[in-house]
Amino acid sequence: MSDSQQIIALIGRGGRFCIASHENPDGDAIGSTLALGLALRQLGKEVLLYNRDSVPDYLRFLAQSSEITNSLAGAPFDATFIVDCPHAGRVGVEFERFVKSGVGGATVIIDHHESSRPASDFRILDTAASSTGMLIYSLIKTLGTQITPDIAASLYTTISGDTGSFKYSNTYAETFRAAAELVEAGADPSQISEAVYENEPLSRLKLLGLVLPTLEISCGGRVSSIVITQGMFRETGATREDTEGFVNFPRSIRGVEVAALFREEEPGENGDRWKISLRAKGALNVAGIAETFGGGGHKNAAGCTISGGLAHVKSAVLRAVEEGISKEVA
Amino acid sequence: MSDSQQIIALIGRGGRFCIASHENPDGDAIGSTLALGLALRQLGKEVLLYNRDSVPDYLRFLAQSSEITNSLAGAPFDATFIVDCPHAGRVGVEFERFVKSGVGGATVIIDHHESSRPASDFRILDTAASSTGMLIYSLIKTLGTQITPDIAASLYTTISGDTGSFKYSNTYAETFRAAAELVEAGADPSQISEAVYENEPLSRLKLLGLVLPTLEISCGGRVSSIVITQGMFRETGATREDTEGFVNFPRSIRGVEVAALFREEEPGENGDRWKISLRAKGALNVAGIAETFGGGGHKNAAGCTISGGLAHVKSAVLRAVEEGISKEVA
Repeated sequence: MSDSQQIIALIGRGGRFCIASHENPDGDAIGSTLALGLALRQLGKEVLLYNRDSVPDYLRFLAQSSEITNSLAGAPFDATFIVDCPHAGRVGVEFERFVKSGVGGATVIIDHHESSRPASDFRILDTAASSTGMLIYSLIKTLGTQITPDIAASLYTTISGDTGSFKYSNTYAETFRAAAELVEAGADPSQISEAVYENEPLSRLKLLGLVLPTLEISCGGRVSSIVITQGMFRETGATREDTEGFVNFPRSIRGVEVAALFREEEPGENGDRWKISLRAKGALNVAGIAETFGGGGHKNAAGCTISGGLAHVKSAVLRAVEEGISKEVA
Repeated sequence: MSDSQQIIALIGRGGRFCIASHENPDGDAIGSTLALGLALRQLGKEVLLYNRDSVPDYLRFLAQSSEITNSLAGAPFDATFIVDCPHAGRVGVEFERFVKSGVGGATVIIDHHESSRPASDFRILDTAASSTGMLIYSLIKTLGTQITPDIAASLYTTISGDTGSFKYSNTYAETFRAAAELVEAGADPSQISEAVYENEPLSRLKLLGLVLPTLEISCGGRVSSIVITQGMFRETGATREDTEGFVNFPRSIRGVEVAALFREEEPGENGDRWKISLRAKGALNVAGIAETFGGGGHKNAAGCTISGGLAHVKSAVLRAVEEGISKEVA
């Protein structure tokens, strides 16, 4: 029996399930949790929806999102689903203990992230899936439960979120075909897009207004960078979460191949620390550059943290990027 | 015979065609022009691709976009197609003369804009279509020509552009289904998105850095506004085209129902003039407000031009918006 078949059997046999996803949850984490939870409830199962952190404001329009709790009460369970997350550790320390204690029952990981083979009893892993929600969608169809408008909206949100509204390279023909089916099942693209993409805290735009003037271009227009300081956070009341996606502004400039964002972290014991995000549009593998500074990531999106003054940190990173670009040409 | 059937017959009979679209062309204008042109050439027809203005930089990745010309040489034609445009006047003065002279042959309008019944011999009009490219796609399928990767990329660009990458309320299940087919035919979503959405002139981001600090919130967080002055254009070297989409920044703020952008125009005979763009997320019909100032538009997107000092113009418009919102509640 394949893992999928065993998971279907597990769902059929059991009566009580826990569904959890990674801390600091995004649209794929919350949408996958809700879609699977709603489907299992449709089958008459009792379901606990868990997340260590609260549901971000912009995802609270999703039906039953208020039922996602940070309490692991109600054990034992017949099985625990870990969705959009490669291992229990990324759900949180308390959850990891819960799983290890065995009260969660069999563990099932459903995920599309690249990761080492995860420790779980069963798994549906597909790094080629646009979102974990796409894998949940297949599972729900196999279960034969109805795709209600609420389930459709949750699943659509996973796809919209993880593909940047159908812009990233993980957007395939089947992504669009699933989106078409979900719209027919009741998902509303403009309502969901408005919730996900037009629901910014005011502090974020104020911060952006301070950050954009730091924009610098180097390497003949092929490298761009912006800087976010702790002072800017204080001045605007913005938080680290508000900087999500800021690196896309320097990245969006015509001719830019690599964009860098330098974000000042809370001062540590050893003085200033900078979190650096690198994004590539061209051929350069920015993960390799992040690794030389003790970080890592993907070919097109990577990051690292460096201690030191801004001028020093910036020149070290930009030099490495520019050397990387020169080598590409050579 | 329906207009579509007559258009198919017209294409079958003729040998030489002209295809034109509106001035200041966008993705739907250029993509529709190219897709139809490539399909007709596949049938062995001679085709002139016309636009009064040049193809915007960000659309030059589309195959054969360099063949779009602002010269109407080569007449007479068997028929002239006016795509993504409700009437010849919006193509330009010279083109209107060309059509009236009769050397363009029969006129065919293919469009999805709301408009009065246009003066043309044949027409395919569907305001429910996500893009004019969707109508061209149907026509090409009826013609039986192959959807080559170049045609697929052109058609995909029309959809991505006119739906804001599948975010606007004109995004339907059939929009996604068409996108799936076009991806299978060779359109690359991330390549096209990168060209269309990540190809900004540096001057635009510099301008945005000056504009965001003008952000103001009123009416208890339900109204937001930004201001662009001629001084900002001078300081950054940005142009009016660079302000496209800026109103979406104040619109994107959580809780905002109406966003207003005040853009200073070149000073006229009567002193200062301001172009106002209004965007609604809530129930308010901003076209009604724009109309009271001599402008117009759609329910969710409207505009007008007002002469006077900024303080005066801004307070008049924002007062009208706030009164509109109060009435909604009442």
